[in-house]
Amino acid sequence: MTLYVNLAELLGTRIEQGFYRPGDRLPSVRALSVEHGVSLSTVQQAYRMLEDNGLAMPKPKSGYFVPVGRELPALPEVGRPAQRPVEISQWDQVLELIRAVPRKDVIQMGRGMPDVLSPTLKPLLRSLARVSRRQDLPGLYYDNILGCMELREQIARLSLDSGCQLNAEDIVITTGCHEALSASIHAICQPGDIVAVDSPSFHGAMQTLKGLGMKALEIPTDPITGISLEALELALEQWPIKVIQLTPNCNNPLGYIMPEARKRALLTLAQRFDVAIIEDDVYGELAYSYPRPRTIKSFDEDGRVLLCSSFSKTLAPGLRIGWVAPGRYLERVLHMKYISTGSTATQPQIAIAEFLKNGHFEPHLRRMRTQYQRNRDLMLDWVSRYFPAGTRASRPQGSFMLWIELPEGFDTLKLNRVLVEQGVQVAVGSIFSASGKYRNCLRMNYAAKPTPQIEEAVRKVGAAAIKMLAEAQD
Amino acid sequence: MTLYVNLAELLGTRIEQGFYRPGDRLPSVRALSVEHGVSLSTVQQAYRMLEDNGLAMPKPKSGYFVPVGRELPALPEVGRPAQRPVEISQWDQVLELIRAVPRKDVIQMGRGMPDVLSPTLKPLLRSLARVSRRQDLPGLYYDNILGCMELREQIARLSLDSGCQLNAEDIVITTGCHEALSASIHAICQPGDIVAVDSPSFHGAMQTLKGLGMKALEIPTDPITGISLEALELALEQWPIKVIQLTPNCNNPLGYIMPEARKRALLTLAQRFDVAIIEDDVYGELAYSYPRPRTIKSFDEDGRVLLCSSFSKTLAPGLRIGWVAPGRYLERVLHMKYISTGSTATQPQIAIAEFLKNGHFEPHLRRMRTQYQRNRDLMLDWVSRYFPAGTRASRPQGSFMLWIELPEGFDTLKLNRVLVEQGVQVAVGSIFSASGKYRNCLRMNYAAKPTPQIEEAVRKVGAAAIKMLAEAQD
Repeated sequence: MTLYVNLAELLGTRIEQGFYRPGDRLPSVRALSVEHGVSLSTVQQAYRMLEDNGLAMPKPKSGYFVPVGRELPALPEVGRPAQRPVEISQWDQVLELIRAVPRKDVIQMGRGMPDVLSPTLKPLLRSLARVSRRQDLPGLYYDNILGCMELREQIARLSLDSGCQLNAEDIVITTGCHEALSASIHAICQPGDIVAVDSPSFHGAMQTLKGLGMKALEIPTDPITGISLEALELALEQWPIKVIQLTPNCNNPLGYIMPEARKRALLTLAQRFDVAIIEDDVYGELAYSYPRPRTIKSFDEDGRVLLCSSFSKTLAPGLRIGWVAPGRYLERVLHMKYISTGSTATQPQIAIAEFLKNGHFEPHLRRMRTQYQRNRDLMLDWVSRYFPAGTRASRPQGSFMLWIELPEGFDTLKLNRVLVEQGVQVAVGSIFSASGKYRNCLRMNYAAKPTPQIEEAVRKVGAAAIKMLAEAQD
Repeated sequence: MTLYVNLAELLGTRIEQGFYRPGDRLPSVRALSVEHGVSLSTVQQAYRMLEDNGLAMPKPKSGYFVPVGRELPALPEVGRPAQRPVEISQWDQVLELIRAVPRKDVIQMGRGMPDVLSPTLKPLLRSLARVSRRQDLPGLYYDNILGCMELREQIARLSLDSGCQLNAEDIVITTGCHEALSASIHAICQPGDIVAVDSPSFHGAMQTLKGLGMKALEIPTDPITGISLEALELALEQWPIKVIQLTPNCNNPLGYIMPEARKRALLTLAQRFDVAIIEDDVYGELAYSYPRPRTIKSFDEDGRVLLCSSFSKTLAPGLRIGWVAPGRYLERVLHMKYISTGSTATQPQIAIAEFLKNGHFEPHLRRMRTQYQRNRDLMLDWVSRYFPAGTRASRPQGSFMLWIELPEGFDTLKLNRVLVEQGVQVAVGSIFSASGKYRNCLRMNYAAKPTPQIEEAVRKVGAAAIKMLAEAQD
C-alpha cells in the first residue's frame, strides 16, 4: 500500500547521504522495478514523490537525475518525542510571538502570515467596502449561528476539490480556523483526556489543548510522509487516546503532504480504535501540485473526521473567517462555537462569498502557489548559502514556511533575542512541541515577494547562528 | 447604606398594590423623613429612584404624584430559584433563537438586536469602507493578541464615564462580549465549579457555563434593585462559589440598574469570601439616566472584577467587537482568548476606533437612549392594553428589552410556536434560567422605531396569550 513511499524514502536517503551526487543519473524505472520487486508504476510514483521533494529531476528520454546546482540541505531528523502524554508548556514563547505587531523596521519571519499584497486580492477589498455601503446593512446584524448561507454554499463547492462531498448544512462558519480547532477539541474532549498530535505541531492547537486541560501525546513525524502510523498504532494500543489531531496537507511547520495511502491507513486506524480525527487543512489549498491533495475527511464514511480550515492563509488572517465540517459532532461543535463567540462577523463572510462566487479565488490561488513555490526554492538556496554547515531543512510541498534544524544543543530562543536587535524575527522551534523540544529548530516564513532586504534578513539569521555556534565551541 | 433603596421599595410596593392610586399625591419628603427616621436626602434619593421606575412624578412646588393615565402593569415577582447549584439545560431553546436569520416576513422581537438604522451610524459605515481601501491594508493583517492600540485607548477613555481608571494595557479586545465572558469564566473556573448568577440571567453566559462544565447557582433577583445580597451572602456561606456573574447595569432581561450602594456592598461580599466578579456591562452605556451608572469595576481595588462589554448593543452586533478588563486575571484571560479565536478581526476595530476618536459615539448614544426610553413607555402601554389582565412587566432603566410575566403555569414555548405562524417571535423565559424556570415569562425587544406593524405584532402576542389562557380554563 505504501510501497512507493518506502521506495521514495530509500532513494531519498541515498541521495541525501551523497550516495548519488548532484548531476548523477538515478537508476532506471525498470532497474528499480526488478531490484525491489515492485511494479513499474510504483517506481514512477516514487520518482514523482522525489521530484515533488526536489530530490529528483526528469530529463526527457534519459530518465531521472539528481538536480544540479542546488546543494540542498539534508532533511530534518524524525523527532523522538516523549513516549507518554504530557501537560503542555511554552505559553510564554507563544505569547511573545503573538504579541508582535507589524513594524516597518522588523522583518517578521516568525508568523504564519501569507502575502496579502497580491493584486488578485483587490476584488475582495472592493467587496468589503461594498458591503459597508449596502442599504440593507447586512454587516451590522447578527448572523445565523451556522454562518452565512452563501458562504457555506461556496465552501461546500470548494470542498469538492479535496474529494469531499459536503453540503452547506454540514458546515459551521467560525472566527478563523483557530475557533474551528478549539470548538472541535472542546466538543470531543474532557479535561485530562489524551490527544495524539503530529510532532512538531501547530502551536495554536497545542495551546488550545493546554487551555482546555488536555494532555498531548506527540507522535514521531517524518518530514516527508508525516505522522508515523507505526508509532501511532502503538500509542493507540497503549493509551486511551480520545482524538488524533494533525495537519496532513502542507503541514505546519514541516511542509509535507501526507501520501494518500497513509491518509487512508490513518483513518482505518482511527476506525479500529474508535477515535475521532481533527484535520487541520488550513494550508491544503496552497499545495504546489495540482490537483490539490485530498483530505482525510474525503475518505471518511462515519463522520469521525472534523475538518477545520479558514481563509486566513489563502486570503488574509485579519478577516478571521474559518469553518469546520464536524461530521457527527456538529451539534456539540455548534454549542462550543456559540459559547466561544456567539455568531461570526457578517461583513467579511459576505465579501468572501462574493469573491468566491465571482470566480476570483482560483486565479488568486494559482498565483500564490506559484509565488510560494518559487520562494521556497530561493529560501532553500539562501539557507544552503548562509546557514551553518550541517543545517537541515524541510522540503515544503505547499504553503510558505520552512522548518530548519540546527545542531543539537543549539538554542533558537537565544538566537531570536540576538536577532531582535538586528530587526529580524523567526519562530522558535520549542513552541511546536508540547514539551519544549525542538529548541534547536526554527520556522521561517517565505510568503512575501523576495527582496534584497529579505535575503539580507535570512543572511543575518544564518550569520548569527554561525557566530553562536563558534562561541559555543570556544 | 441602602436606606433609600428600602424606602423606595416600600413606597413602590404600596403604589403597585393600589394603596396610592394614579393621580394621588404621595407623602411629602419631610413627612417621610420623620416617619422613617431618615434624612431628607435619603427620601429624595428614594423618590428619584421611583421616578426612574415610572412610579412617581414630581410636580413643581407640589411634591410627588403617582403618574396618571398610565396603568402600569405590576412588577414581575422575585424568582424563587432552586437553592442549590444545578447543571444547565435549555440549549435546544437557545439554539432555536440563534438559528433565526433576519426575515422580512417575521417581526423578530426575541433577539438582543439594537436599532442599526440610525443615521448617526453612518460615519461608522464610511470608516469600515475606508479601512478596506487603505493602501497599507491594515484589515488583512493579524492583530496583536491584545487588540488594536487605538481602540484600547478609546475604550480606556470611555471607561472614565463609568467611574473606571483603566489604561489601554488593562484591556483585551475580544470577538464580541460573548468571547469576553467566555474567556473570563474559563480563566477562573474549572469544570464542576459553582458560579453564582443573577436570575433571570443572560442565556449566552449561562450556556457558556454549561459548555465549560460549571454549575450555576441562581440567586433571587429583584426587578428593581437586582441580585439579592442577602440570598447571595447565604449562598456564599453555604457553597464553595468560585465567581459571581451578573449584569448590574440595564440588566438583561430585567432592565434594572443596581443601586450604587448595592454594587459596593456586593463587592465587599466578594472580598470577604474572596471570589471574583464577572460584570457584564454590555448595556451600561444605554442607561436612560445621565450620567451613565457606575460599574462594580469602578469600585474594585484588588483587581477581582472582570469587566466585560462590547459594541454589539451600542453600535452593531455583526461587528463582533467586545472587550474585557480582566484585572488580576489578565494573563489567564489572554491565554483563553488566544485559544478561542487567536487574534480579533482588525478592520472593525480600526473603524470603531475612528468613530470614537472623531466624536461620533456620544451623539449616537444620546439619540439611541432617547429613542429606547420613548419606546419603553410605548411598549409598556401596549402591554397594558393588549396583554391578559394580571400580566406583569419590568421597568427597564436602559437598553431595549422588556421582561413580561404571565400567570403561573403559562407556557411561552407553546406561545412562541403559535406566534411563528403569525410572523412574530419573542424570546421564551426558560432560556434565562439554568433550570428552565420562567416558562411563564418572555422577553420582547423594543429597539426599532415604532411602526403600526410592531404595534400589531405586540397585539398578536397579547391576543395569542389571552386565547391560550382561555383555552386552558375550558
